[in-house]
Amino acid sequence: MYQSTTQIRVRYAETDQMNVVYYGNYAQYFEIGRVESIRALGFTYKQMEDEGVIMPVVELHTRFLRPATYDELLTIQTQVRALPTSYHIEFFQDVFNEENKILAAGRVVLYFLQKQNWKRVNIPPDLQSALAKYF
Amino acid sequence: MYQSTTQIRVRYAETDQMNVVYYGNYAQYFEIGRVESIRALGFTYKQMEDEGVIMPVVELHTRFLRPATYDELLTIQTQVRALPTSYHIEFFQDVFNEENKILAAGRVVLYFLQKQNWKRVNIPPDLQSALAKYF
Amino acid sequence: MYQSTTQIRVRYAETDQMNVVYYGNYAQYFEIGRVESIRALGFTYKQMEDEGVIMPVVELHTRFLRPATYDELLTIQTQVRALPTSYHIEFFQDVFNEENKILAAGRVVLYFLQKQNWKRVNIPPDLQSALAKYF
Amino acid sequence: MYQSTTQIRVRYAETDQMNVVYYGNYAQYFEIGRVESIRALGFTYKQMEDEGVIMPVVELHTRFLRPATYDELLTIQTQVRALPTSYHIEFFQDVFNEENKILAAGRVVLYFLQKQNWKRVNIPPDLQSALAKYF
Repeated sequence: MYQSTTQIRVRYAETDQMNVVYYGNYAQYFEIGRVESIRALGFTYKQMEDEGVIMPVVELHTRFLRPATYDELLTIQTQVRALPTSYHIEFFQDVFNEENKILAAGRVVLYFLQKQNWKRVNIPPDLQSALAKYF
Repeated sequence: MYQSTTQIRVRYAETDQMNVVYYGNYAQYFEIGRVESIRALGFTYKQMEDEGVIMPVVELHTRFLRPATYDELLTIQTQVRALPTSYHIEFFQDVFNEENKILAAGRVVLYFLQKQNWKRVNIPPDLQSALAKYF
Repeated sequence: MYQSTTQIRVRYAETDQMNVVYYGNYAQYFEIGRVESIRALGFTYKQMEDEGVIMPVVELHTRFLRPATYDELLTIQTQVRALPTSYHIEFFQDVFNEENKILAAGRVVLYFLQKQNWKRVNIPPDLQSALAKYF
Repeated sequence: MYQSTTQIRVRYAETDQMNVVYYGNYAQYFEIGRVESIRALGFTYKQMEDEGVIMPVVELHTRFLRPATYDELLTIQTQVRALPTSYHIEFFQDVFNEENKILAAGRVVLYFLQKQNWKRVNIPPDLQSALAKYF
């Protein structure tokens, strides 16, 4: 299994009048978790796009367990539990607060597509090799 | 079953550099669908909050089937398939483009909570009565 | 002078824990006002981009006079007070609530650029002709 | 003069189909700059709100000089050039890219208000004292 963590601080803009983080903003938190997990492998998602591969999200599942509040320092834990071998990848992503309580649990599926024509492609070999070390 | 539809136009701000709507923005589209479905029943979510009941999202599930693009007029279809009888409600929400092709399919679960203390409460009786006519 | 108005309803996502619309979201409201003002002329900004001209914002000035709140139906008034004759255009944009009180007053300057290379171009002749009828 | 800097990394969600950061998102960057400038003084804006003082923005002025792009590490420089002595405060905020080129220059005016009734109050004395050391 491959796992990485990163931290973000809740922005004022991300709260709503329920005094907690708006549920739609967790998708951004998960995105940051994935981006940093790829960076921790020695790649960047930016570079992948520059080389012609995009990764749109095709499934998002989230359970919201506790609210996040303004200015909290959140920890986003991102896991890849199965080595991708074709055109899709699945991330398990949990968000924790400063007391290490889980706030949200997510599962996100993305496709690897050619940027030019949005056709499916296999996971880039160098990304797969980097991930393979953890499996 | 209770069903309503509403329309929104994709904002430039909602696109990303993949030239499509960012996946995180569908949560806002679904929110609008739910808010308008409640308004179509003769209530407003605003009024419910003013009367002390909030409805945080506890589960969000989305499948992204086709991308939405800038300036498209989207139709959000919102369904309540089971009459809520306690502290939670489930919405099925689909997004269609102008050619009536489905772009995203969502399922969202929300709780009814007292605004004061975030304790669970049953669905407000007048909202339940209004919904009951469809079941 | 050319003027148009359009309406938007405040989304829950757009509020913050001050119980009002987050100041950063007015930029989106202004964008919608501009887009609809161009549509009212018989064009679309989307079409302009498809034809190779983009309009990035180079200046934004906003005074926030009264807060906007959740679920309010806002009116965005958009004015072009001088016929553009070169590579820039200036919009004056005001936001009003349902009681016709002004909430925010904006001034936004945009450039016309070639999409390919971000070089300045003059306002597209057909857009200028459509605007010229009001001057 | 009081000055602080902080860094943020551009999120995918913050780009638009022009392949740059959407102009409306700079308001969030400026907010982060202000929040961190207050934290660097030994306070937090969160604490101020908890103690009953809110700081809504009343003026926002931004010049967009160069586009910011996805995944760039931006530096936000925040300056207070005059010691606040009454109910308002003015921030000068510039955003720089990794090559130290300026991308945007902002000026933001905020009020100090009582959270309860939105009446103007003077800057909290302890915040003023902390700032005074720089003037």
